[in-house]
Amino acid sequence: MIVTVTPNPALDLTYSVDALVPHRVHRVAAVAERAGGKGVNVARVLHAIGEPVLATGFLGGATGGRVTDLLTADGVAASFTATAAETRRTVAVVDGGDATGFWEPGPPVSAAEWSALVAHLGDLLAEADVVALCGSLPPGAPIDGYATLIRLAAAAGVPTVLDTSGEALRRGLAAGPTLAKPNAAELTALLAGGDSAADLADTARALAPDAGAVVVSRGALGLLAVTGDGVWAAGPPVPLPGNPTGAGDACVAALARGLRDRTAWPALLADAVALAAAAVAAPVAGAIDSDVYLRTLPRVTVTTADGGPRARTHR
Amino acid sequence: MIVTVTPNPALDLTYSVDALVPHRVHRVAAVAERAGGKGVNVARVLHAIGEPVLATGFLGGATGGRVTDLLTADGVAASFTATAAETRRTVAVVDGGDATGFWEPGPPVSAAEWSALVAHLGDLLAEADVVALCGSLPPGAPIDGYATLIRLAAAAGVPTVLDTSGEALRRGLAAGPTLAKPNAAELTALLAGGDSAADLADTARALAPDAGAVVVSRGALGLLAVTGDGVWAAGPPVPLPGNPTGAGDACVAALARGLRDRTAWPALLADAVALAAAAVAAPVAGAIDSDVYLRTLPRVTVTTADGGPRARTHR
Repeated sequence: MIVTVTPNPALDLTYSVDALVPHRVHRVAAVAERAGGKGVNVARVLHAIGEPVLATGFLGGATGGRVTDLLTADGVAASFTATAAETRRTVAVVDGGDATGFWEPGPPVSAAEWSALVAHLGDLLAEADVVALCGSLPPGAPIDGYATLIRLAAAAGVPTVLDTSGEALRRGLAAGPTLAKPNAAELTALLAGGDSAADLADTARALAPDAGAVVVSRGALGLLAVTGDGVWAAGPPVPLPGNPTGAGDACVAALARGLRDRTAWPALLADAVALAAAAVAAPVAGAIDSDVYLRTLPRVTVTTADGGPRARTHR
Repeated sequence: MIVTVTPNPALDLTYSVDALVPHRVHRVAAVAERAGGKGVNVARVLHAIGEPVLATGFLGGATGGRVTDLLTADGVAASFTATAAETRRTVAVVDGGDATGFWEPGPPVSAAEWSALVAHLGDLLAEADVVALCGSLPPGAPIDGYATLIRLAAAAGVPTVLDTSGEALRRGLAAGPTLAKPNAAELTALLAGGDSAADLADTARALAPDAGAVVVSRGALGLLAVTGDGVWAAGPPVPLPGNPTGAGDACVAALARGLRDRTAWPALLADAVALAAAAVAAPVAGAIDSDVYLRTLPRVTVTTADGGPRARTHR
């Protein structure tokens, strides 16, 4: 099975209102609740495409209990480490335009709680094919926390996918994850550089000399994969309208599955682009539109870094 | 003890942000959580001024559990009827100007749950000195729900204070509560009329021929009491800057205490104005500023309806 780790999950609330007017009171017409956080979204995508998955990380209090209930209702297996602090919420207010978001700060974790998560992941590694480490670290977690988990998995022979940002990404990259999936902005925030394919590849190599591969997501441009076997670019046939939230999480889900199956890079990248496109077409993060996935997959363009077409591929 | 009934309570969240910009994502700097709903606020005010009180109503799910935990932390005794549906939240985003509010719709209650609340209040009446019926009715509750509870209390010889709006207010008034506390807008919404003291008194008499008294809150103008003993106006010495949310709830708390103690109208109205002023001076609903209360109480002006000074009063 694939294990996703979400150290800083959330209860995601979506409020529908007619029009958001600052400094007024709005009666919310409809409320949608779902389990949130990058690794939780990755787990829901994997479950949606029929892959065995277990979600772990931290949850606490009544809000954490609600997240567990929602994962259960979604059919996603979960085994989280309890925190004394209450799990955070995110509120997205939708009024016809883009959403207006309010993100609560993550609750703090204690040193003992962090150690409990490390030990729990250690136990889960016996059954794990791949570990996906996703999202921000909560206050109180060691800033090299992902590096610790990457080394723990490597010692057990379990490949890792890292999707985070900032100092947690820098420290994590230094520990040599099997694969890292920053977006272009997250990568260039660590080491200023251009955002052309060649510049991004240089930055990825400089930051991650020991990482097996860095797959950079570039929004509508698709993916750039900097690997030991070469550099590939993979893009969707057409830009897709929809909800970009969760596209990165769907991409990570495909990459984790591909690592497990030792899928060749061109096919793996095509799958990741198609699954991300299927997430863009779905209304909420963690969900996919299967028709878009199946329609997009054979039409993803994968080229080598020098720009020539290398493969037009599908699974 | 005073029993407050809140059929449609909430978990109230306050988010502090730098500036609310529609269609952007905001990282919330600080989150305040408290038990919310009019009757819950009334209970917290009564507890703050040292009066024995019990809060009841409906609560459900993880959010309802959180409300219970917060009431316990506040030291407020609570005994709610459980609902299958999850208790709602309200979110107030504060950015230096007025708050921007998002109110989730109330969760539905079933006929069996409504009957359970009626039965529970019936049990509580044995120990109740006064019952305060506060706020909106949730979907699924009978629209004459407050009328049922008013008659139940009256049959047990327990006086009632009613603070609601719309059809629930109209039906409740018809059942003859000991005291009703609409604001001027809530009253004139039921029966169009002017908002002068004389007009409001006429409207109150027309709507509530059997109510013992109607105390109309008029914002910075204070209170207008239409009673069997005469009509009084009570106003603060100066308009107070601050947070008007919760002023009505503090007013209801004072009125409930005064009904219990059979306080004479001028002293009772002075107390209600002073406690409302103390709530305006406090940052959140359900809290009061004791200094403002003590400073305001002797300076409230109470006049008879014909405008002549009748009493300058303090407790």
